[in-house]
Amino acid sequence: MENFIYCNPTKILFGKGQIFNLGSEIKNYSNKILFVYGGESIRKNGVYNEVLKQLNRYNIIFFELSGVVPNPRISLIKKGIEICREKGIGFILAVGGGSTIDTAKTIAAAVKYDGDPWDLFVKRIPIKEALPIGTVLTIAATGSEMNDTAVITNWEKHEKRMISAEALYPKFSILDPECTYTVPNNQTVFGSIDIMIHLLEQYFHHDQETMVQDVLCEGLLKTVIKYLTMALKDPEDYNARANLMWASSLALNGLIGSGVISDWTTHRIGQEISAIYDIPHGESLAIVWPHWAKYVMEEGYGKFKQYATNVWGANDEHKTDKEIAIEGIDMTEKFFSKMGVGYRLNYLKIYEKDIEIIAGKVVEPGPVGNFKKLYKEDVIQILKKCFYKD
Amino acid sequence: MENFIYCNPTKILFGKGQIFNLGSEIKNYSNKILFVYGGESIRKNGVYNEVLKQLNRYNIIFFELSGVVPNPRISLIKKGIEICREKGIGFILAVGGGSTIDTAKTIAAAVKYDGDPWDLFVKRIPIKEALPIGTVLTIAATGSEMNDTAVITNWEKHEKRMISAEALYPKFSILDPECTYTVPNNQTVFGSIDIMIHLLEQYFHHDQETMVQDVLCEGLLKTVIKYLTMALKDPEDYNARANLMWASSLALNGLIGSGVISDWTTHRIGQEISAIYDIPHGESLAIVWPHWAKYVMEEGYGKFKQYATNVWGANDEHKTDKEIAIEGIDMTEKFFSKMGVGYRLNYLKIYEKDIEIIAGKVVEPGPVGNFKKLYKEDVIQILKKCFYKD
Repeated sequence: MENFIYCNPTKILFGKGQIFNLGSEIKNYSNKILFVYGGESIRKNGVYNEVLKQLNRYNIIFFELSGVVPNPRISLIKKGIEICREKGIGFILAVGGGSTIDTAKTIAAAVKYDGDPWDLFVKRIPIKEALPIGTVLTIAATGSEMNDTAVITNWEKHEKRMISAEALYPKFSILDPECTYTVPNNQTVFGSIDIMIHLLEQYFHHDQETMVQDVLCEGLLKTVIKYLTMALKDPEDYNARANLMWASSLALNGLIGSGVISDWTTHRIGQEISAIYDIPHGESLAIVWPHWAKYVMEEGYGKFKQYATNVWGANDEHKTDKEIAIEGIDMTEKFFSKMGVGYRLNYLKIYEKDIEIIAGKVVEPGPVGNFKKLYKEDVIQILKKCFYKD
Repeated sequence: MENFIYCNPTKILFGKGQIFNLGSEIKNYSNKILFVYGGESIRKNGVYNEVLKQLNRYNIIFFELSGVVPNPRISLIKKGIEICREKGIGFILAVGGGSTIDTAKTIAAAVKYDGDPWDLFVKRIPIKEALPIGTVLTIAATGSEMNDTAVITNWEKHEKRMISAEALYPKFSILDPECTYTVPNNQTVFGSIDIMIHLLEQYFHHDQETMVQDVLCEGLLKTVIKYLTMALKDPEDYNARANLMWASSLALNGLIGSGVISDWTTHRIGQEISAIYDIPHGESLAIVWPHWAKYVMEEGYGKFKQYATNVWGANDEHKTDKEIAIEGIDMTEKFFSKMGVGYRLNYLKIYEKDIEIIAGKVVEPGPVGNFKKLYKEDVIQILKKCFYKD
């Protein structure tokens, strides 16, 4: 097991009706807030009204910033920063999913920085302070509600980058599974795939005897597999939504990755694809992961075998390590297909001619991955597999 | 899944050599500290000297309070409070196991309270503030290094009680598995049993569809079962010590119990036994749990079946739910026996005549347990089983 430092101060308020604590939680930080959200979805499902009731009941002055979209933009962030500075905002409330929360985090950090906010992403300027933020989560996916990271896209430059800083942990996050009842099935799938790939990125490493991390990871993977299926059948199945929601936070709150060297290649490739083509993050991950896995599996059949047997219940009798490894990857891919994702990139109208560009961007900061270190040519090989059926 | 609030702000510094961060961590809080520890063990294994080096290097003024023993006493706490008040202590460092940490926590709270420190335990006076504390953990067991709770014994009154408060979370805990190399085998066993029973107390509940909590719990149980055996074979097996250590913190840091209604009967009975007889906490738990389990299992064979199959790999084919439930409990008891604990109470020179007194104390605050609510007569029945081999 690797040395690690783990500290996650986010307060989780989980369950039905927790939104009734929103006003009093915000009041601990400020009386004047920026309220960030996407658009129609929270108006339709009633969350917007619930938030407004809370803000009014506690006499909290708020300014709205709506229009956050998936793969969120730096342009909207600039608008948020202006409002914060002009109005003397003391707290940012994000109501939505990962894109909304990441937008709020970036504004929170950039308000305290004098230069171009994109500098924080590309020049890696250390973020020492930020406005406090809180969230009301409306989709189980990115885990941003309980971590210190934000991912933003600069569409002018076709770059998708991330920032991380202690100051970016939400002070609190309200996780009411009922707020996810209205998430459409395809978004439920994309979100769940995102959770699964977060877990897989942290599961495939070469550290030995990391059973604590392994069992947590395997258990959460099985949880997502089980409850995704149930949530699709009945979107208002409280327990299915609850397990997915809590799994999303635990999958990327620092716990699973503590003590191991994670990989993150699939995310790097997926990010660069969606920085060029505006496709759902979860969808790109579902396509890339099985091909990444088959490309790197010979670096450690043992772990892939463990994955196949412990997560998918594959029977390893009379099979070589390679055979059982492939079986686990195939079962994953089949599951993705059954959920309606994981087809090839060409089905998403992505062109092979861009492979070279995407691969170049993936390795721009240097070779990618830790399970196996990959160079541009490796990424090209993986991407090629993402286009044709074998 | 039940509603819950989860927030754990303790910073964990995990791994080899993390003690080198001790001085700088303390400096974030104070320059003048109380250094609480047991006695010989940390002098023998070199941890005492490492701590002193750090305190000197960072010019931290310290006052020592040694002599903490298992089932720690309120008397020593009074001495600690005096030192804190007299010297204007700003931080308490606990170096040891749960008893030492709980002593430090109690001093930290009691310094801010004008009355008798035992009031905090019996009169349930809310603890709103406390001196900041930090820990260097030297045995994997209680989880106190990452939670908000302290358990203390008042030997004059033969009472063992607990306090909990947000202010009692350690600011940081240093978990270096190498610091546990010199823990004697019997203590390693007692500590591991404590971890297992913490998990079992939170595992047996009637909440349905709590897979996130269940898989984490089952996974950590399997981890402890595996690595306890390894640590006994080779006390300097780093990975075995590391897995036990991290499991101890995760087993009782609020995570596993969030979203379920835990039981805690075994702990209540064990505590009252060790409030009369000064026997190891882990040992009393190992004796009581299987008898508690058999006494209550008919309340929910399903969960006991899940336990037998998922944790112990029991084969449930052609067996009734009752049979497989009993098999799981028996496997647990056999494991405890193999580890050298879990014999009957009479072997520990505990007298049957005290059953009545112990049972009376257990239910003094009201009926005990949530998996099945137990009254005095129930506790007497369970305790009787703890005396004779079936």
